[in-house]
Amino acid sequence: MNDIDKLIQIMGRLPGLGPRSARRAVLHLLKKRETLLHPLIESLGDVAAHVKTCGICGNLDAADPCAICRDAGRDTSQLCVVADVGDLWALERIGTFKGRYQVLGGVLSALDGIGPEQLAIAPLLRRLEGGEVKEVILALGATVDGQTTGHYLADRLQPMGVAVSRLAHGVPVGGELDYLDDGTLIQALKARQKL
Amino acid sequence: MNDIDKLIQIMGRLPGLGPRSARRAVLHLLKKRETLLHPLIESLGDVAAHVKTCGICGNLDAADPCAICRDAGRDTSQLCVVADVGDLWALERIGTFKGRYQVLGGVLSALDGIGPEQLAIAPLLRRLEGGEVKEVILALGATVDGQTTGHYLADRLQPMGVAVSRLAHGVPVGGELDYLDDGTLIQALKARQKL
Repeated sequence: MNDIDKLIQIMGRLPGLGPRSARRAVLHLLKKRETLLHPLIESLGDVAAHVKTCGICGNLDAADPCAICRDAGRDTSQLCVVADVGDLWALERIGTFKGRYQVLGGVLSALDGIGPEQLAIAPLLRRLEGGEVKEVILALGATVDGQTTGHYLADRLQPMGVAVSRLAHGVPVGGELDYLDDGTLIQALKARQKL
Repeated sequence: MNDIDKLIQIMGRLPGLGPRSARRAVLHLLKKRETLLHPLIESLGDVAAHVKTCGICGNLDAADPCAICRDAGRDTSQLCVVADVGDLWALERIGTFKGRYQVLGGVLSALDGIGPEQLAIAPLLRRLEGGEVKEVILALGATVDGQTTGHYLADRLQPMGVAVSRLAHGVPVGGELDYLDDGTLIQALKARQKL
């Protein structure tokens, strides 16, 4: 296989790029060598060399512990549990949560054979032993596996004397009732808020 | 900007990847360091170091002249004119054309200010001077700019004593008449073939 075909094959393994779009991307890179190909190689090299997994929370950052775990300004009494680093980034983008995180590295899944040992549940429980954390916020997806994981964690956490909460379900901002699935509508009605 | 954000920003400039999918791709790369990130860096480096533009036809290849121009088994009497290297690759995938290529590097566009000087038309005309090429096949897109470029090239090529043809318009294989645009249907009817 020649260099170009090999690169197309590797690029095609990225999420969101199929064989056709990988080919387009490679062609684009070859057309913009100075402005895109070389900066991309350099940037990938930087990331490969510097980015590591935070030993405390599981975040990806240039330093270990990560910037969030090192930030003394953040509230150590709130711990937000997320499945993936991408979820942590999503919460950081909204910028309203000022506590710390624990990345589980996935959710429980009978189908994929992912049990509690495969997730960072032991590190989560260890972080609660100090007694500094008062509230654990379960920010897991509203999928079957996400909810199962939430229930499992709630059962494990409740005896430890911390408050456990989960993200609210409801109508997405900008959403039309008419297009909403029944499950969401039921949850939104149940959790209706006083005005 | 940290290493990860910088990489997301660069990846987001690839065609087919927006900011959100670039983020997903970077996260995926960081999860699969050994099997994806490192091979990608190596492969990009290989392509950057070895792939060059063929001095004869404009194709991208590890060698100059490219494998197609060097291949003595290919028919030198047929020259296929394409706008872009991606179009050349598309034709090579079907594998039925056994002649050589000329990549124009785009199509004429009054809107984008692309005139004949910006395209590889002079090299194309020089290649015809030897008299070896008997037929020029214009494999340009069926867009307004593609067709304009085709007409312009036909005018320039006809006095040189070569046969000039273009790709057939018609019903795409697997296409339903009902869903076809009028222009294509008109062309398909005009160019109807005897059975």
